[in-house]
Amino acid sequence: MRTVIPVRSYGGPLRYGASMRARPYATTSPTRLAAALLEVAARSGLEAASVREVANEAGVSIGAVQHHFPTKDEMLAYSFRALSDRVLTRLANVDPDIDPARTLFAALSQLLPLDDQRGSEVHVMAAFAVRAVTSPSLSVIRSSTLFTVRTGIATVLIRLGAPDPETRATLLLAAVHGLALDAASSPDLYPREYLTHALHTQIQLALHGADAH
Amino acid sequence: MRTVIPVRSYGGPLRYGASMRARPYATTSPTRLAAALLEVAARSGLEAASVREVANEAGVSIGAVQHHFPTKDEMLAYSFRALSDRVLTRLANVDPDIDPARTLFAALSQLLPLDDQRGSEVHVMAAFAVRAVTSPSLSVIRSSTLFTVRTGIATVLIRLGAPDPETRATLLLAAVHGLALDAASSPDLYPREYLTHALHTQIQLALHGADAH
Repeated sequence: MRTVIPVRSYGGPLRYGASMRARPYATTSPTRLAAALLEVAARSGLEAASVREVANEAGVSIGAVQHHFPTKDEMLAYSFRALSDRVLTRLANVDPDIDPARTLFAALSQLLPLDDQRGSEVHVMAAFAVRAVTSPSLSVIRSSTLFTVRTGIATVLIRLGAPDPETRATLLLAAVHGLALDAASSPDLYPREYLTHALHTQIQLALHGADAH
Repeated sequence: MRTVIPVRSYGGPLRYGASMRARPYATTSPTRLAAALLEVAARSGLEAASVREVANEAGVSIGAVQHHFPTKDEMLAYSFRALSDRVLTRLANVDPDIDPARTLFAALSQLLPLDDQRGSEVHVMAAFAVRAVTSPSLSVIRSSTLFTVRTGIATVLIRLGAPDPETRATLLLAAVHGLALDAASSPDLYPREYLTHALHTQIQLALHGADAH
């Protein structure tokens, strides 16, 4: 189940051990710790991502984690932001196609568990979304991401003259989030071909009645 | 934040204390413990629902919980099944309307956070769904529920002659799950009127091209 991620290979050969112990906090960074947290959460659930487990995963001391993140809440918020930013960057970098349906598919399929990386992301993103229900600091990050993506989708639908573009954008995003969660929790019921067909169908429904369609 | 639920008022006046201690396991039941777990999870997240917290919430000893649920996994699985059954029963008891769109709305609105009870249910259901990603026993329960609801929706769409009814049923359910999770984590972005409008819209899209529509 363990996968190799760059952060865990960090540390250098043993002969540097003495000098590393002399400056233990320099052996890691918030970015590396967030990567370790996401790895732990993808493998064992977000509830397993304690300071101790993250330190263990990153190969550093608990003190080194606490140096960068004085509280667990700060560690979670930083990691959630890092994950959200990574996904938003991928969405922003999708090449626009001459066919708007294809552009929407290329963007929104980034949010479905269509390969192992997206499977891990979907799992951890959904776990953070659930945690946001009881955490105001996580809810702020979640709302900002939702608002950005929803607005991006709505902009495409407005350009195409789709009826009620705001609501249809909300539904496109919701359908993708729901498909992702349903597929992650019940993979046998949602094969990958099924997910891509469902996304194509929702995009067609969202574009129904648009000027250019 | 604490709300009163029936299970916590159980126990009787103090004068029965001695006889209760003589038979501590009779003071609770799996059903009461599941209700206590759901209460803890709705208030503080599923990760807070330890055997100790559930015992505390139900007002019984840790031993009484362990008597009914030898492992935490069994406690979680029983509680998830109890919650899923409660929601499925509500769905099954929706009065069929002469207008199929209204029937679908009456059923699927049971899965949106349109009042405090459904808000708690949505939060805990989503938490269990996320947990199911790393728990085969929870995944089995989740798949069974998804399959039942998806089939029920598909049956309505097939009767109406909607195109690709299986996919549209999947999308209706996914949109509701996604709306529910997005609204739970970012309530300010998803007012209740907005959610009901979105559900009506998704139902109209799902019925587009149906014989009777």
